[in-house]
Amino acid sequence: EAIRQSVREALTRADLIITTGGLGPTSDDLTRELIAGLLGKKLHEDATTAEVIKKYFQKRNRPLPPGNLVQALVPEGTLVLANPNGTAPGLAVEIEEGGWKMEDGKRPPSPFSTIHPQSSPSKKWLIMLPGPPRELRPMFTDAVVPLLQRVVPVENKFVSRTLRTVGIGESAVQEKIAGPLAALLQSGLELGYCAHMGQVDVRLSAHGDTADRLVQLGAEIVRTQLGPAVFGEGDDELEAVVIRQLTERKQTLAVAESCTGGGVADRLTNVPGASAVFLGGFITYSNALKEKFLGVQTKTLAEHGAVSEPVAREMAEGARRATAADYAIAVTGIAGPAGGTVEKPVGTVFIALATAAGTEVWKMFNPWDRVTFKEATTRQAINQLRLRLLG
Amino acid sequence: EAIRQSVREALTRADLIITTGGLGPTSDDLTRELIAGLLGKKLHEDATTAEVIKKYFQKRNRPLPPGNLVQALVPEGTLVLANPNGTAPGLAVEIEEGGWKMEDGKRPPSPFSTIHPQSSPSKKWLIMLPGPPRELRPMFTDAVVPLLQRVVPVENKFVSRTLRTVGIGESAVQEKIAGPLAALLQSGLELGYCAHMGQVDVRLSAHGDTADRLVQLGAEIVRTQLGPAVFGEGDDELEAVVIRQLTERKQTLAVAESCTGGGVADRLTNVPGASAVFLGGFITYSNALKEKFLGVQTKTLAEHGAVSEPVAREMAEGARRATAADYAIAVTGIAGPAGGTVEKPVGTVFIALATAAGTEVWKMFNPWDRVTFKEATTRQAINQLRLRLLG
Repeated sequence: EAIRQSVREALTRADLIITTGGLGPTSDDLTRELIAGLLGKKLHEDATTAEVIKKYFQKRNRPLPPGNLVQALVPEGTLVLANPNGTAPGLAVEIEEGGWKMEDGKRPPSPFSTIHPQSSPSKKWLIMLPGPPRELRPMFTDAVVPLLQRVVPVENKFVSRTLRTVGIGESAVQEKIAGPLAALLQSGLELGYCAHMGQVDVRLSAHGDTADRLVQLGAEIVRTQLGPAVFGEGDDELEAVVIRQLTERKQTLAVAESCTGGGVADRLTNVPGASAVFLGGFITYSNALKEKFLGVQTKTLAEHGAVSEPVAREMAEGARRATAADYAIAVTGIAGPAGGTVEKPVGTVFIALATAAGTEVWKMFNPWDRVTFKEATTRQAINQLRLRLLG
Repeated sequence: EAIRQSVREALTRADLIITTGGLGPTSDDLTRELIAGLLGKKLHEDATTAEVIKKYFQKRNRPLPPGNLVQALVPEGTLVLANPNGTAPGLAVEIEEGGWKMEDGKRPPSPFSTIHPQSSPSKKWLIMLPGPPRELRPMFTDAVVPLLQRVVPVENKFVSRTLRTVGIGESAVQEKIAGPLAALLQSGLELGYCAHMGQVDVRLSAHGDTADRLVQLGAEIVRTQLGPAVFGEGDDELEAVVIRQLTERKQTLAVAESCTGGGVADRLTNVPGASAVFLGGFITYSNALKEKFLGVQTKTLAEHGAVSEPVAREMAEGARRATAADYAIAVTGIAGPAGGTVEKPVGTVFIALATAAGTEVWKMFNPWDRVTFKEATTRQAINQLRLRLLG
């Protein structure tokens, strides 16, 4: 009943409704059936989809589990959106005025939207997508966006652009850009922020004929105000920017990670083509491995402790020497929850970057939980290399 | 207007409304102000919260950004939920019958819920929480749950338990447990599934006096049917289970990762206390590093290729030898999108586990996008060690 009521409310309020999840083969996957009922549409088996599902299991040498073909059922008059990454297809239904059932059997309200009076007056679209992100995301980009571009009349142009920044807090970003953007904001530019750990996305958007120009001028101001803190736009990832920088320069990278435990390498190797520039590296959690693989001196460890500027330096230089990479990043710190002291509390971390020109070390303080500490530190380490490569 | 309308709809439908996000210091953080307006409540500065915000910046040696104290504004009559991980506190408001404004100025509908007629008849709670997950999650556990336990009358007992499985598909899980659970399902046990990459969570829940017993019997059946595929319950993570197994046995682990690029180590080191058993390891993306650090033979690489059973074996044995660990996991495969061949398509991967008793190698096929490939492979590698430690 909660699903039914949510969809009813959405139909009353919006002209485009997208649901995610509940299209799978198990007994709690109810979305398809409930929505078909709400729309008064019968389900029938879609032959193409049934074939795709059978082939999916054949290709993997697995028997077709009973009940799995429920995923091939589609409400009558529905557009089937292919799912190259799974078995449940997406379903897109065009709904005519009043084309659904209310709880009390009454006629539904007119589909004229109250929020966006300028929107399409007589038709709505209800689109059901699978829940798993790796199925949902490509289906949205490859099938839903083209469908909407085809069926939704563009009566009010909308432009949106996101600039991604690193190493500067959300409040500090606002402080630097809000003033210079004030005139554009009064002319209709809209400004939004999204903060991750150590990364803040700035979203500029506008409607109407002047949208392109407003967003373009806004982006120029943001870039001028924030300088090298802006590392990319849209879906750019910090690690992809660095891999691109290294690829252009035909230079190589290695890592030596203690507290981040492979997190820096993991992020870098998420980028397709990373193998051309990323050689590999060391995870040296124990002091013994720091000495054996990276050549960190027993004396340095004894005098300064594993979490120290000199050890970070020797780790980076050792990794660069052992791998013959152009650059080596090293990280050593206290991720917690245990291991902190008064002098070196949990969150203390040293990041080193060794290059042909010498080695630099930065001290950071990331007093978060363990996983957040790793995420923030990993981002800072990759960003130091990015800034260095910018020159 | 979209925020206002969503909250109005939720108030009409539910007795507990939780919002997340929009409590921060930037200009697009509107939730606090809009909801106060909707409830007809004035905002005033909460002295304790203002003090906490000032101290937060002092501790980090950063000046208090202008406008930041907006986060200390609270609607009158609101419970303030402390935020030890950020600056914006949570806000919990008890709402009396009809205590909010409708769009058209009319009296709101009675707060009697239509969905859960057994629920509290005359009061509702609206709880605003910050958006960042690392602030939201602990606040929910530490402040919201105790609050709800105190203020919501328990009229209908609810029991829920989640069993986590690995290495078995969602359909296959259902096929094995749905039949044996049939009688309990007819008696009121509810069954849900949540599929991740290579991990399926089975949720058992029930209402009323027999809830404990139904869920307990259900869990026993699931464990019997799925055997060692069940690795934990609730929030247990696979890597935490393995670190626990190793800690109990006082044994150590090292890794040698090619295609997962540090992902196995990254996951293992997310577990507090991992440093007691995880020594470290190697990320050997290039063949040169596989030879130099792990002692993989040039001949083996030339004859079988880097993605092969013999290379996986030599990598694991080399890592075990170099680190003197009790166990070494090695992974070599083709993450894609490039690098696949007819014989070894993208998704091909070999996982090796070296122990004192010898080395085992498994061939897997994970034909997904690059990041999903890494996630699935990482989970399979850690699971092979778990199964081995189970005996």
